[in-house]
Amino acid sequence: MKQSTTFEPPPISEATASLEAGVLAGKRRALAKAITLIENTRADRRAEANGLVSRILPHTGKAIRVGISGVPGVGKSTFIEALGLFLVKTGLKVAVLAVDPSSRISGGSILGDKVRMEYLARETNAFIRPSPSAGTLGGVARRTRESMLLCEAAGYDVILIETVGVGQSEIAVSEMVDFFLVLLLPNAGDEIQGIKKGIIEMADGLVVHKADSGNEDQATQAQRHYRNAVNLVRAKRKDWRAPVLRASSTEGHGIDKVWDMVSRHRRLLCERNQLESMRSAQMQRWFQTALEEELLDRFHEDPRIRERLADLQARMRARRLSPHHAAEHLVDLFLS
Amino acid sequence: MKQSTTFEPPPISEATASLEAGVLAGKRRALAKAITLIENTRADRRAEANGLVSRILPHTGKAIRVGISGVPGVGKSTFIEALGLFLVKTGLKVAVLAVDPSSRISGGSILGDKVRMEYLARETNAFIRPSPSAGTLGGVARRTRESMLLCEAAGYDVILIETVGVGQSEIAVSEMVDFFLVLLLPNAGDEIQGIKKGIIEMADGLVVHKADSGNEDQATQAQRHYRNAVNLVRAKRKDWRAPVLRASSTEGHGIDKVWDMVSRHRRLLCERNQLESMRSAQMQRWFQTALEEELLDRFHEDPRIRERLADLQARMRARRLSPHHAAEHLVDLFLS
Repeated sequence: MKQSTTFEPPPISEATASLEAGVLAGKRRALAKAITLIENTRADRRAEANGLVSRILPHTGKAIRVGISGVPGVGKSTFIEALGLFLVKTGLKVAVLAVDPSSRISGGSILGDKVRMEYLARETNAFIRPSPSAGTLGGVARRTRESMLLCEAAGYDVILIETVGVGQSEIAVSEMVDFFLVLLLPNAGDEIQGIKKGIIEMADGLVVHKADSGNEDQATQAQRHYRNAVNLVRAKRKDWRAPVLRASSTEGHGIDKVWDMVSRHRRLLCERNQLESMRSAQMQRWFQTALEEELLDRFHEDPRIRERLADLQARMRARRLSPHHAAEHLVDLFLS
Repeated sequence: MKQSTTFEPPPISEATASLEAGVLAGKRRALAKAITLIENTRADRRAEANGLVSRILPHTGKAIRVGISGVPGVGKSTFIEALGLFLVKTGLKVAVLAVDPSSRISGGSILGDKVRMEYLARETNAFIRPSPSAGTLGGVARRTRESMLLCEAAGYDVILIETVGVGQSEIAVSEMVDFFLVLLLPNAGDEIQGIKKGIIEMADGLVVHKADSGNEDQATQAQRHYRNAVNLVRAKRKDWRAPVLRASSTEGHGIDKVWDMVSRHRRLLCERNQLESMRSAQMQRWFQTALEEELLDRFHEDPRIRERLADLQARMRARRLSPHHAAEHLVDLFLS
C-alpha cells in the first residue's frame, strides 16, 4: 500500500480494457461479460471490476432509472415487458435488471428465466439480465448498481430495476433509481393487510395493475383507496404527489400514461436542477454502505475474530459481558 | 493485546468497584456517579465504564422497560410525571431517562430541567436523569441503554425512557424497551400530516393525551381515528393489537388504565416466554450496532483516512471513481 496522498487505481488488465471498449461501443456481449465480471466475488476479479466501473463512470448518468416493485402475483414481469416494448417502439434502448436476494433460495426468482419476457428479449434494443445469484442484500444491491452503471455506459436510455415486494430490497432499489414505481392489485380489500405503508411513502407513482376489462370496478375502487393512502402519508417531495394510475399489460392500456408520469417527474427534477443533487446524495450513501460492508466483511473474515466471537456471544447471552464491552474488545483485537 | 482464546476484562479500579457496590446497594448518589462515568468519552474512563457495566449486568433484567414518544407539545413530561407518581404510590421504584440527540444543540432538551417534574423529583423512590449532552444518536442511545442497566441493577422496578418524536431516536428507544408507548394529541386532523406512519407500527400502545374535560369530543374522535390507523398497519405481534387509550395528566384520569395495559402486555410476554428471547435479540442488535459504530469511529479517527477521504469524495462526485472502489481502497489503507 503506497502512502502518497492521492490514490491511483492499479491499471486494469488487457482483457478488462477490451471489455471497457466493448461496453462503451454498446456491444451487448461485452456488456454481459462485464456484468459477469462484476458478479465474480474472487478478490483479483473484484479488483478488475472496481477498475472497470471507475473507468466507465464518466460515461454514466444519462439514463432514466426506474425501480419497479410490487407483491408477488401483481404481474411485474408482464408489466415490465409491456413497458419495455412500449419504450423500444418509441426508439429508446431499454435495460432490465433485478434485485432479488431470495433468488435461488426460494426458487422464486423473478427474472430467473428470460422466457418470461420472451418478446422483449427478442428486441435488439432491449437488454435483460436475470437476477444475480443469491447473496446478501448488500451484495445483490451492489451488483445491481454497478450493472446499472454499465448499462448506462453502454448507451441504454432507460434502466428498469425490478424488485420483489418483500423486506429491505425496496429500500435498496429506491436508493438507486430516479423514480420508484409500485404496482398494486385491484382487489385492495385483500391486499391492504399485506402491503406495508412504508412502500407507499417510498413511491413516486403507483399503478393498479391487472385493470383488465371485467375488473374495472375493482380497479377504480383500488385506485380511490390508494389515492387516499397517498394523501395520508408524508410526501417525499413537496412538489410531487405520487399519482395513482391504472393499467393492464395483457390488454395493453395505461402503459403510455405510466411513461408520461415518469417523464413529467423527470422534467420536474431537471427543471429544478435536482436530478444531479439527488444522484450525488445517492452516491454518497452508496459509499457509506460500501464502506460499512467492506469493514464488517473484513472483520468477520479475520480468523482471530472467528476464534473469539462465539465465546463472547455466549457470555453476552449469559449477561456476563456488555455488548459495548465486547464490541470494543473485538475491534481492538481486529486492529492490533 | 493478549492472544488467549478467552477475553478477561482488565480489573476495574477501586473507585469503580466502590461505585459498583453503591449501585448494587441501591444508593442514588452512586448511581448518579456511575451514569456520569458512562457519559465520559475519555478512553481510560470508557474502559472503566465497560468494566462496570459488564460487572453489574448479572443484576439486570428485572425491571419493566417502557419507551415513551410523542411530538413536541403532546405533554410527555407531564405524562411521565403523572405515571411516575402513580407507580411510586403503588410501591414501585421508578427511574426516568431520556434519549434526545438534539439536546443542547436546539436548546430544546426534553429533560434538561428536573423542575419540569418537580413532584416526581422529590420522591425518594424516583430517580430522574436529565438527557445526556448532545452527541451522535448512537452515542446517546448507548449511554441511555447503559444508564438503564445501571438503574435496574440499583433496584428500580420501572424504567421510563422518553424520546423526542423526531428522526431515528424512536427506533433506538423501541429497540431498548419492552413496551413502546406513543402519546398523541386530541386534534388528530391537524396532526395526521405530521405523524409518521412508522411510529404507529412501532407502538405497543397509544394514548390520546390531554383528553381534558372540554376536549372529550376531540379526544374520542382522535381515539377512533387512531384505532383505524392501528388496524391499517401491520401488527408487531399477532397476539397483541396496540390499544388506543385516552388520558389526562392534569386531571389525573386514564393513567391507571395505561399501566394496566403495560401490565397486560407484560403478562402476555412472560406467559409465552418471550420476554427473554426479545431481550436477547435486542442485546444481539446492540452488539451489532456497537460493533459497527466502533469500527467506523476508529476508521474516521485514522489520520491516513482523514488525509485521503476528501480527495476521494471529490473524485466520486466528479464521477471518476466508483464508491465501491473508493471504499475498498480506504479499507485496505486502514487495515494496512
